[in-house]
Amino acid sequence: MIKFTINKAAFQNSLRITKQAIGSKVAIPALTKLKIVVSTDGITLIGSNGQISIENFIPADNKDANMVIEETGSILLEASFFESVVSQLPEVTLEFTEQEQKQVVLHSGKSEITLKGLDAEVYPRIQSISKETSLKIKVGLLKALFNETVFAVSNQENRPIFTGVHLSVSTDNELKAVATDSHRMSQRILSLDDTTLTFDVILPSKSIHSFKNVFTNDEEEIEIFIANSQMLFKNETISYYSRLIEGNYPDTNRLIPKESDYNLDLVFDVSELRHSMERARLLTTQTANGTVKLTVTQEMVVTTANSPEVGSVHEEISTLEKNGSDLTISFNPEYLIDALKVIKAPEVRIRFISNVRPFTLQPKNTDNDFVQLITPVRTN
Amino acid sequence: MIKFTINKAAFQNSLRITKQAIGSKVAIPALTKLKIVVSTDGITLIGSNGQISIENFIPADNKDANMVIEETGSILLEASFFESVVSQLPEVTLEFTEQEQKQVVLHSGKSEITLKGLDAEVYPRIQSISKETSLKIKVGLLKALFNETVFAVSNQENRPIFTGVHLSVSTDNELKAVATDSHRMSQRILSLDDTTLTFDVILPSKSIHSFKNVFTNDEEEIEIFIANSQMLFKNETISYYSRLIEGNYPDTNRLIPKESDYNLDLVFDVSELRHSMERARLLTTQTANGTVKLTVTQEMVVTTANSPEVGSVHEEISTLEKNGSDLTISFNPEYLIDALKVIKAPEVRIRFISNVRPFTLQPKNTDNDFVQLITPVRTN
Repeated sequence: MIKFTINKAAFQNSLRITKQAIGSKVAIPALTKLKIVVSTDGITLIGSNGQISIENFIPADNKDANMVIEETGSILLEASFFESVVSQLPEVTLEFTEQEQKQVVLHSGKSEITLKGLDAEVYPRIQSISKETSLKIKVGLLKALFNETVFAVSNQENRPIFTGVHLSVSTDNELKAVATDSHRMSQRILSLDDTTLTFDVILPSKSIHSFKNVFTNDEEEIEIFIANSQMLFKNETISYYSRLIEGNYPDTNRLIPKESDYNLDLVFDVSELRHSMERARLLTTQTANGTVKLTVTQEMVVTTANSPEVGSVHEEISTLEKNGSDLTISFNPEYLIDALKVIKAPEVRIRFISNVRPFTLQPKNTDNDFVQLITPVRTN
Repeated sequence: MIKFTINKAAFQNSLRITKQAIGSKVAIPALTKLKIVVSTDGITLIGSNGQISIENFIPADNKDANMVIEETGSILLEASFFESVVSQLPEVTLEFTEQEQKQVVLHSGKSEITLKGLDAEVYPRIQSISKETSLKIKVGLLKALFNETVFAVSNQENRPIFTGVHLSVSTDNELKAVATDSHRMSQRILSLDDTTLTFDVILPSKSIHSFKNVFTNDEEEIEIFIANSQMLFKNETISYYSRLIEGNYPDTNRLIPKESDYNLDLVFDVSELRHSMERARLLTTQTANGTVKLTVTQEMVVTTANSPEVGSVHEEISTLEKNGSDLTISFNPEYLIDALKVIKAPEVRIRFISNVRPFTLQPKNTDNDFVQLITPVRTN
């Protein structure tokens, strides 16, 4: 029967990370539980919602944890209740003692809290992944890649493959991430130093959102493994497993126009363009088609949005560069705002073919490693 | 037709205050609007949800507003939409121009936004209050008084008088505030320097909650007026009107025990007791009766809470003073937590009569100007 003492803050921090994978609404009741495995090497906290699973190890020699393991074993506890209890314990150290019939007693100062546990045997096993070939990458780089693409996934469950980000590594040492909801697309390519692992997978957007709460040190290097429709992100203590979405992602390269297709090339200040679109959005959210009109002439660039009930916006936007033919094009300003939010450069290049063809955005002065595409709306 | 220019930040600040009174869900459509009245003296912004009304005046000579009034008039505009538009205008100055058919054009930098307005005649009139006798009080004092009582009001609409705070001033120069939901009561008495106004009213808790967002300068002195089932709080530029709840509030003085009734007198550290109750609450929220048990013996004070499904808490709490007989009493820890939250003193005196009679809380070392009462729960 388990018995250990540990520093409360260190334990709480590990609990917080593991809880990212534990859902409150899951089909299998055991998955609302936290699994605790205590061995002489240390304590492992395990959580899963069926889609994402986390194994988080606190080594016995971790100095912050100040751990003393007296007896080993494993047990299941109600995750969110256990976390609340731990966070409210009065002292810096907590003593965890398993008693008969899976009862757990937590002692801290003058406080004694008894919790009912369950046999760890009822917990599903996490499928193991062979750790032969891996891709090593810095957390910060991967987060940037995710951030630049994941906003463009679809939230329509009827086409599951578009609810994830398409990640692929071919033999050319490039990691490519693509997301699209069929109205817009965002594609980012990252050059890798070297990789032995090649893959072509679709990672659910939910996994991407919780990834950033699990791996918080941007400077840290993690390893990626893939097998059995699962992706594993791993550092020294945390193993973060995500299921992959099955299916074939379409070839998005063919959507990107050729250089010779473009007829109009504009460069804007990112912040000025974004604020102008935010003003237009105030009106477009009140209308049925929800579009803003951009009119480009030799003299000026003007945005207009009009709601018969509420009013209208009319404003001129300065361009930093302007080359090509006149154009009038309508689109949802929400898409342009989202696109501009992930452009870290101060200036953006937007190129157009015609008022019925998608236009592309790229941070100015970069190669083609980050490109976004927005489809216009046909209006009369 | 109205025409003026004004500093955006100053205008926005006045808008924010006035908007406190404007609801999105109101029976009268005109009440979702903001009324703007422009005279040669300045601009008045008026908002109301039928319960609360605010008249907020920006004088023409206000230096921050940097106002130029060219033409006067009045108009109604959709409040929340107008506020969003103003907040997103690009420049520090905005130009407001009324055009034909109640159209309003806002110019700011290169941005030109047209909004549809309505004739101000359709807006209901705010009933005026005679300003003959008033009570003058500092905002900070009134806020403290409200804060110490309003949490104890009832949220049950079937007895409206208990959804407000009972405020009374008699000829003894004392302002008394009382709130109760029949399970607990909080009463605060404030000594006034001098007042000519006496009253006995019930102010809705909703008005109290928005009061603190309207009057933000605690050092400022405001005037209180009462007439026609309305209460008016007024400083130099803001008039804040609230409807009062009609009915007779019961005499709560008779609920407060006599000194000679008490059989047990305990003094606790506020923070220690509160944390202990917060741990007990983790368990009690999982149970049907939701009570914590406090057991006082000559040796110690112990709290216990028990949930058959989840577990139990057992802990000893230190007392700073303890006099009187042994007692075992059960109550909802939520009420004690709420009570302790508004006690600013580091120590609290809690006195008991028996396990079926309400117990009282007072900050230690104060007179009887602030007293709270909690009713125990009978358990087997």
